[in-house]
Amino acid sequence: MKRYLTVDDIGDLSQALKEAAEVKKNPYAWDTLGKNKTIVLIFFNSSLRTRLSTQKAAMNLGMNVIVLDVNNDGWKLETEFGVVMDGDKPEHLREAVPVIGRYCDIIAVRSFASFEDRDADYEERILSQFIDHAGVPVISMESATRHPLQAFADLYTIEEHKSKDKPKVVLTWAPHPRALPQAVPNSFVEWMKVADVELVVTHPKGYELAPEFSDGVTVEYDQKKAFEGADFIYAKNWASYNDYGKILSKDKSWTVDEEKMALTNNAKFMHCLPVRRNMIVTDGVIDSENSIVVEEAANRVVSAQVVIKRMLESLNK
Amino acid sequence: MKRYLTVDDIGDLSQALKEAAEVKKNPYAWDTLGKNKTIVLIFFNSSLRTRLSTQKAAMNLGMNVIVLDVNNDGWKLETEFGVVMDGDKPEHLREAVPVIGRYCDIIAVRSFASFEDRDADYEERILSQFIDHAGVPVISMESATRHPLQAFADLYTIEEHKSKDKPKVVLTWAPHPRALPQAVPNSFVEWMKVADVELVVTHPKGYELAPEFSDGVTVEYDQKKAFEGADFIYAKNWASYNDYGKILSKDKSWTVDEEKMALTNNAKFMHCLPVRRNMIVTDGVIDSENSIVVEEAANRVVSAQVVIKRMLESLNK
Amino acid sequence: MKRYLTVDDIGDLSQALKEAAEVKKNPYAWDTLGKNKTIVLIFFNSSLRTRLSTQKAAMNLGMNVIVLDVNNDGWKLETEFGVVMDGDKPEHLREAVPVIGRYCDIIAVRSFASFEDRDADYEERILSQFIDHAGVPVISMESATRHPLQAFADLYTIEEHKSKDKPKVVLTWAPHPRALPQAVPNSFVEWMKVADVELVVTHPKGYELAPEFSDGVTVEYDQKKAFEGADFIYAKNWASYNDYGKILSKDKSWTVDEEKMALTNNAKFMHCLPVRRNMIVTDGVIDSENSIVVEEAANRVVSAQVVIKRMLESLNK
Repeated sequence: MKRYLTVDDIGDLSQALKEAAEVKKNPYAWDTLGKNKTIVLIFFNSSLRTRLSTQKAAMNLGMNVIVLDVNNDGWKLETEFGVVMDGDKPEHLREAVPVIGRYCDIIAVRSFASFEDRDADYEERILSQFIDHAGVPVISMESATRHPLQAFADLYTIEEHKSKDKPKVVLTWAPHPRALPQAVPNSFVEWMKVADVELVVTHPKGYELAPEFSDGVTVEYDQKKAFEGADFIYAKNWASYNDYGKILSKDKSWTVDEEKMALTNNAKFMHCLPVRRNMIVTDGVIDSENSIVVEEAANRVVSAQVVIKRMLESLNK
Repeated sequence: MKRYLTVDDIGDLSQALKEAAEVKKNPYAWDTLGKNKTIVLIFFNSSLRTRLSTQKAAMNLGMNVIVLDVNNDGWKLETEFGVVMDGDKPEHLREAVPVIGRYCDIIAVRSFASFEDRDADYEERILSQFIDHAGVPVISMESATRHPLQAFADLYTIEEHKSKDKPKVVLTWAPHPRALPQAVPNSFVEWMKVADVELVVTHPKGYELAPEFSDGVTVEYDQKKAFEGADFIYAKNWASYNDYGKILSKDKSWTVDEEKMALTNNAKFMHCLPVRRNMIVTDGVIDSENSIVVEEAANRVVSAQVVIKRMLESLNK
Repeated sequence: MKRYLTVDDIGDLSQALKEAAEVKKNPYAWDTLGKNKTIVLIFFNSSLRTRLSTQKAAMNLGMNVIVLDVNNDGWKLETEFGVVMDGDKPEHLREAVPVIGRYCDIIAVRSFASFEDRDADYEERILSQFIDHAGVPVISMESATRHPLQAFADLYTIEEHKSKDKPKVVLTWAPHPRALPQAVPNSFVEWMKVADVELVVTHPKGYELAPEFSDGVTVEYDQKKAFEGADFIYAKNWASYNDYGKILSKDKSWTVDEEKMALTNNAKFMHCLPVRRNMIVTDGVIDSENSIVVEEAANRVVSAQVVIKRMLESLNK
């Protein structure tokens, strides 16, 4: 396993879920696999869950972990080619990436969409540099277009909590005061399309995801209708793809509340966290017994550990 | 041992001092106790000694350590309930705490008094959330009202350096340019009241500590009188409790100097560090042979290791 | 080995290069040498290569590593003596250094020249405090006047890539938008003077290095003449020593380009990184097959590991 970005990179989902269950049951069973192996976690954007869960997963496997908070160090990297570097960026990604690759065995990178240039974001210009030039396996810890460790944890959480085959899973947009990237909904949709679930996406008009993700997905613009009979409600805000990076609505009638949850099949409530209470979801729903957000976050260790474990197994071959 | 905040949490002091001596003598005797166990150190306020000594203590016990500098990440947590989270705080402590608890076996938290709301500070609203909702043992690495790892190190340092039973220990206020929390003097007094020492506290009028700490303590407003016959001088600045968080005096006649030390029984000089030279204490005193501030700081590893060791032993039961 | 700052501290260079080759061939051969030993890496100035490579080297030796980013923590240390500390510096280096020394077995420090006071910089006032008062071995990870881990890595890289005995090595100044310290050229010259190479230094007039480094070195003010027959071109910018800390030139006719490289004996191109493309060196040169900058950076692990290994061996004696 040389990179982890898209759902294709994980291969067969039922096999991945089986490994996830094994890892969760016995997280220290491979605690010498990573001996004398080092993972560098690079954060261009800061993080709580991703930082802790990925570091924990790597330590469970006996790896050495180096965390690099680019964000705090004010380390600005040039990404354009052919420029005279006489400005505020002291280093080019073209040197930085292969050098980091020489100091470790696996690189995990967090680098959000800039919302400045849709093409640059959707080409994954930062992450691609790592994938192409690091010389070691690369993991997206949320990049411009995807958050695959989250999606894998989400799928595993659904697997753990589903009470029937092919549950109805609803991804619902919800309001938020700031413009948020599409990485989480993109990956969620990408994974759910392949998983054995019935996926429905609901959002106000104008919030359609990029075609490469939304193609073939059932979109229901009536949120209440979408909720009917749902087994899982997955709430998330994202900014517009078509009017790129813009907030088109802060309509709180889209907030997930008890009334809407009553329309579901006693659905579990999911969110990737952090969550804005009483914007995305009411206190009543997130504090209810059907809220599985903490378990979902806990499963981030599981997804990260399966991915890192596979990469280590590849390295040891 | 499920939490470490007050002197009661450590139980019998003579037993604790005995364990401290064992840990200091042979710090690596339990270096497999923490195998596959993780401690997260969360710093809402930055730190030198606490960071290094707590991390060192955990590593001595073979633990994995994750350090989270909330301070640098600009990670603002909502702590109020029922609010619409549409402002600058993207996450509620109510989600953050149990999630962090899922990623580790022990949490240590540093979160100073805000000085904005005395009730909020003295109810330990931040730390209480961790204690109540983390689901794992919680250590205060200095919270709003207490600094128990410091107080334990202080007691052990006195034990190491005392030349008679029941030494006279004087806590003296001293001037400082900024308003400082009461956590260190509160814990020091809380511990010394239980310890086998004669405690005298001296400070200008208006600097009385909170009743829950000062009750039953001898206060002597004449600093020189307090120093007479002292075996240990413990200097510290703190802001007013009654006029909460205010600086009432910067009177440098309270600075600990050679003349005052001459009134003592050849007392050792102590301070938790960092110390403002020639404000809190003169160069002459802190550079003298009787200054034991570096040894006192070194003992922070010892106190942290005893506490973490006990928690690990509880977890392994 | 108690300190690592000057070329004298490493002793015989051929022995050091032999150890470097062993470490590079089998980096994990001493992975229990550092068991229960802790190194603290203190960064007064932030870093990519130095941080990653030194941490990696210490982990290869089985050490515990604590990283302290003083830079981010806004931790200002008083360095003057006898002052009343009533300003913005809460702690004196005189306490901080011995305390840190009590928490670890080796200290590595990064602290650049301030360019405010040439005497203070060239007396290495910060690093000297660590060397004199830490009580444990101290490594310069680039201090005011030297960058010895870089110089050792540079020498080893030359050793790996040289195609003849006594190669011609040219250190060339090149333009840069900001004023940079002299630590890298100082150490490079200090090491090359002792190494078995023919050293030529080329720079515009006014950029002469400090006499303690430049004494006995061949300086050629005509860059093209200097390049003739060179086996290694080592490019670097530095600010003036004589007009201390000043930028005297940004003349891009000093940029290393293909035309100048054509004058050499098919020379390898070296730079310590980060490098400003099309200021220091053209894309054409740094992207050519003769560019060995990534390998040079990779060798930073090797030099750090030899130094830390020697210190651990001293400690274990």
